[in-house]
Amino acid sequence: MRRAESPTGAESLTRAIEAISLVDHHVHGAWADDVSRRQFEELITESDRPVPGWMTQFDSQVGFAVLRHCAPVLGLDPGPDPETYLARRAELGAEEVNRRLLTASGIGHFLVETGHRGDEILGPAQMAAVAGRPADEIVRLEPIAERVVAAGTDAAGFAGRFEEALWERSRTARGLKTVVAYRHGLDFDPRPPTPAEVTEAAGRWLRASDRSGTIRLDDPVLLRHLIWTGLERGLPLQFHIGLGDPDIDLRRSDPLLLRGLIELAEPREVPLLLLHCYPFHRHAGYLAHVYPNVYFDVGLGVNYTGARSVAVVAESLETAPFAKVLFSSDAWGPAELHHLGALLWRRAMIRVLSEFVAEGEWSENQAVRVATMIGAQNARRVYGLGEKV
Amino acid sequence: MRRAESPTGAESLTRAIEAISLVDHHVHGAWADDVSRRQFEELITESDRPVPGWMTQFDSQVGFAVLRHCAPVLGLDPGPDPETYLARRAELGAEEVNRRLLTASGIGHFLVETGHRGDEILGPAQMAAVAGRPADEIVRLEPIAERVVAAGTDAAGFAGRFEEALWERSRTARGLKTVVAYRHGLDFDPRPPTPAEVTEAAGRWLRASDRSGTIRLDDPVLLRHLIWTGLERGLPLQFHIGLGDPDIDLRRSDPLLLRGLIELAEPREVPLLLLHCYPFHRHAGYLAHVYPNVYFDVGLGVNYTGARSVAVVAESLETAPFAKVLFSSDAWGPAELHHLGALLWRRAMIRVLSEFVAEGEWSENQAVRVATMIGAQNARRVYGLGEKV
Amino acid sequence: MRRAESPTGAESLTRAIEAISLVDHHVHGAWADDVSRRQFEELITESDRPVPGWMTQFDSQVGFAVLRHCAPVLGLDPGPDPETYLARRAELGAEEVNRRLLTASGIGHFLVETGHRGDEILGPAQMAAVAGRPADEIVRLEPIAERVVAAGTDAAGFAGRFEEALWERSRTARGLKTVVAYRHGLDFDPRPPTPAEVTEAAGRWLRASDRSGTIRLDDPVLLRHLIWTGLERGLPLQFHIGLGDPDIDLRRSDPLLLRGLIELAEPREVPLLLLHCYPFHRHAGYLAHVYPNVYFDVGLGVNYTGARSVAVVAESLETAPFAKVLFSSDAWGPAELHHLGALLWRRAMIRVLSEFVAEGEWSENQAVRVATMIGAQNARRVYGLGEKV
Repeated sequence: MRRAESPTGAESLTRAIEAISLVDHHVHGAWADDVSRRQFEELITESDRPVPGWMTQFDSQVGFAVLRHCAPVLGLDPGPDPETYLARRAELGAEEVNRRLLTASGIGHFLVETGHRGDEILGPAQMAAVAGRPADEIVRLEPIAERVVAAGTDAAGFAGRFEEALWERSRTARGLKTVVAYRHGLDFDPRPPTPAEVTEAAGRWLRASDRSGTIRLDDPVLLRHLIWTGLERGLPLQFHIGLGDPDIDLRRSDPLLLRGLIELAEPREVPLLLLHCYPFHRHAGYLAHVYPNVYFDVGLGVNYTGARSVAVVAESLETAPFAKVLFSSDAWGPAELHHLGALLWRRAMIRVLSEFVAEGEWSENQAVRVATMIGAQNARRVYGLGEKV
Repeated sequence: MRRAESPTGAESLTRAIEAISLVDHHVHGAWADDVSRRQFEELITESDRPVPGWMTQFDSQVGFAVLRHCAPVLGLDPGPDPETYLARRAELGAEEVNRRLLTASGIGHFLVETGHRGDEILGPAQMAAVAGRPADEIVRLEPIAERVVAAGTDAAGFAGRFEEALWERSRTARGLKTVVAYRHGLDFDPRPPTPAEVTEAAGRWLRASDRSGTIRLDDPVLLRHLIWTGLERGLPLQFHIGLGDPDIDLRRSDPLLLRGLIELAEPREVPLLLLHCYPFHRHAGYLAHVYPNVYFDVGLGVNYTGARSVAVVAESLETAPFAKVLFSSDAWGPAELHHLGALLWRRAMIRVLSEFVAEGEWSENQAVRVATMIGAQNARRVYGLGEKV
Repeated sequence: MRRAESPTGAESLTRAIEAISLVDHHVHGAWADDVSRRQFEELITESDRPVPGWMTQFDSQVGFAVLRHCAPVLGLDPGPDPETYLARRAELGAEEVNRRLLTASGIGHFLVETGHRGDEILGPAQMAAVAGRPADEIVRLEPIAERVVAAGTDAAGFAGRFEEALWERSRTARGLKTVVAYRHGLDFDPRPPTPAEVTEAAGRWLRASDRSGTIRLDDPVLLRHLIWTGLERGLPLQFHIGLGDPDIDLRRSDPLLLRGLIELAEPREVPLLLLHCYPFHRHAGYLAHVYPNVYFDVGLGVNYTGARSVAVVAESLETAPFAKVLFSSDAWGPAELHHLGALLWRRAMIRVLSEFVAEGEWSENQAVRVATMIGAQNARRVYGLGEKV
């Protein structure tokens, strides 16, 4: 890590990377309403526990990054105290805050995953309206199955209804997403279950849902079935990997556990996109190196490592071919996270690639080209977004 | 990594970090006697094997750090050869060497864990006397249980006697420690065993001890019982994690294996302190991020990586809130390890935080505040040490 | 990471490291013939899949390194486009390309592992002829067993014939190699199998080979038997670890899985050499720290991380004593890989050690000494190569 100023040539590299119209290939909606300090602190952590009285989430890499980099967008000097920052935020109002942070991010296209508490945040159309940039949808598999059950089905009818619902729900979607890492872990039998196994598992699920009154899909047979149906649908398929809220058993989210599925899915040529991956991002890079159907990003790991995201991004530029690495913010809620996702990624790329250039390892042209591939072009190709308008 | 000199402002940051009166929240006593070269080399490695004739432990990061940083404290130029260093050490005598290295470390409070070969090294009171700074005790769970058995008990009486001994032994202790990572691995059933299970396991242990003539607790049921009794005692509970002597199966010391226990223990609000954690320190940082009851340090990993400890410390400043990271040396034996634990941690913090400041990511005030939290304040809060006197 | 120029003293360190006559303790032969672009791209990746039409393997760290560092050796400016590079390569012809790249590498002694498609590449004698430097052989265990079966044996005769073939085949070899990581994974029972188990497993293998018409050893009992017979043979034993082609399950190639075998083998004092190890090289460093019989390198991980190999090499200089770290290129095929293996390792060492010296942590003498140990002396000692001639 070094300062971005570095040798002369670095200025043009900096300008080029700052000018990339990013494709954020995995992001969620911004929070529409004003927030209290407590709410805000709970939205800048993956922990779902109340913030203990003896600490503040502002004392963290992401907290420092908010105060440093978002304050100027709201018209403050960099690095105010949290109270000042939140007072200014309230004064401007959520709508203006969202507009400023999203437009200043330089994100040119949002692929909005709508499956996590989607009713509390802006949808794709609203994101497009606020940011003034196109927003398409990524559809999460598991809620579709849960809505099929909520709407009423018998076990034998589940598979057909799910297929129908998936096709309908994903009509205009750019990709699909699975959270099998949360619901079970990645250590599942990779083979497609038989129809009889699916019916049997659906029956178990229906009976358990009746008993408990809650509909939550965590049966590994059905989760596999969703993935294989998703592969049949043929859209790029995103996998949550690594870092996430404590609902995840991080140990069972190592992407290397997906090897069997990757190999079985390979003949279908459906892009498999491994999201976040921290702290297993080197494992993901290896998979992207050897399997043509594997891509990855360090999404969520960038925001939560703040000033250290330079190291995380650097580690994502090791064994994977550059055509297999993507950019995402995985922001959910405060538009600060959308803004920082883009800003920290750019700063990290500028620092890492400036080093390569300063050391004489890469040319500046190569650096700009790779940053553009990762920041936009790879996603445009994978999701069929066409050339930038 | 960069030189500490860096931009102007870095000087005041350096001075501030060097002035922190550290709390070493996990340390052992210094070696009281003079040492031969063979002894010294065996004390600056985690290996318990004899040093092969074709190598010297001085040819390692910790060896180079001893020669570089401890020599001046003994009145030599930096970087003497090992013979010169050890001759000077012998000339001064162990007492003077300990006094110089401990006082020069700037450690202001020692939490001394006494459970590992405690009779060969200085106890807390002696450490306080030599260093001129307070020293409190951390009590290891497993030896208490072993002494209960050595003193004589039947299986049915074991649990009661252990409880009694633990309360007595920890009357003035600041915390407890478990080495379940060594004795079994962290892949144990996290639930508290039932009284019947404890009695049955105690019976097995007593019979095995009778047969073998040695009393060593490695039964997973009893190890779990000790941990749960420790949680009931309510003092902060330290876990050995990661890097250690070859008695450990490193693969089974990944802190992510503790997830089940962390969640079951969470309602008790007992701080769980994950020690060392190398090479799994990013995993520990994640746990500290999502679980309010989890803290961690990179203790032992700092000394054994020497000039590379900058990278290890940097990696400890990623996802965990800064209120959840602590400092420790884990020194055992030569006071060089106590001294280096503090010195290398300070140098690493200076370099890493100077970078953050130079890059414009953090303010100098933030850097000093975080270093003070990690170096002292977090430990003062967790262990109830009160304000620094 | 910094530029190599850095402070004044760094120049003499650079010169000293560039002058080391390296021992490449694990390498394969260079490709003898001219190559098409498709062939070349397939030879600079560990993937065994065809290169997808929408990407080129030149857009990767190793691809950029080829264009940057090998072009000047072929008389081009650094960083040509791939077409220009390959046209110049074709113009010079494979023999001249090999001669230039191998001699310019500064590798002074090759230990050539001949077990992987050895008939497609130069053998040790040819490598010595082209490079003008000695080349000795490392013999792979599994093909010897496969040739025993191909030549015809019954189950009861297998063990004896294998032993005989191994002793004959390794008469002048400097070491042995096992690819148990590929054939099974490192999670095998570490104990030597009994003769009856070996005969039974050989019978299974013979019957399966008869049925399938292919002879590929992947039975864990027999793989263990080969390893234990290799340990009896007593030559240094290399293990493929970590990063490799997709035939490997990377998750099952964590070197920590070898702990049981390492401990059982320890009394024999046979050096066990863990190769590559990425992304588990810190785990390998720990094993080299605590077990006298363990050594490691970051071989293949250097070429495939290119400009980032500085970080990988830095991470290899943490907990292991410096007498336990070795250099290898693991090059197979294009002599670009042999050249880059040496060049990138030197550049990484220069940058990492210059930092240590600039930071005042190491002396320049220490840095040169450690680079010479890792680059040549440790291998000379382990493989009994004698002093450099």
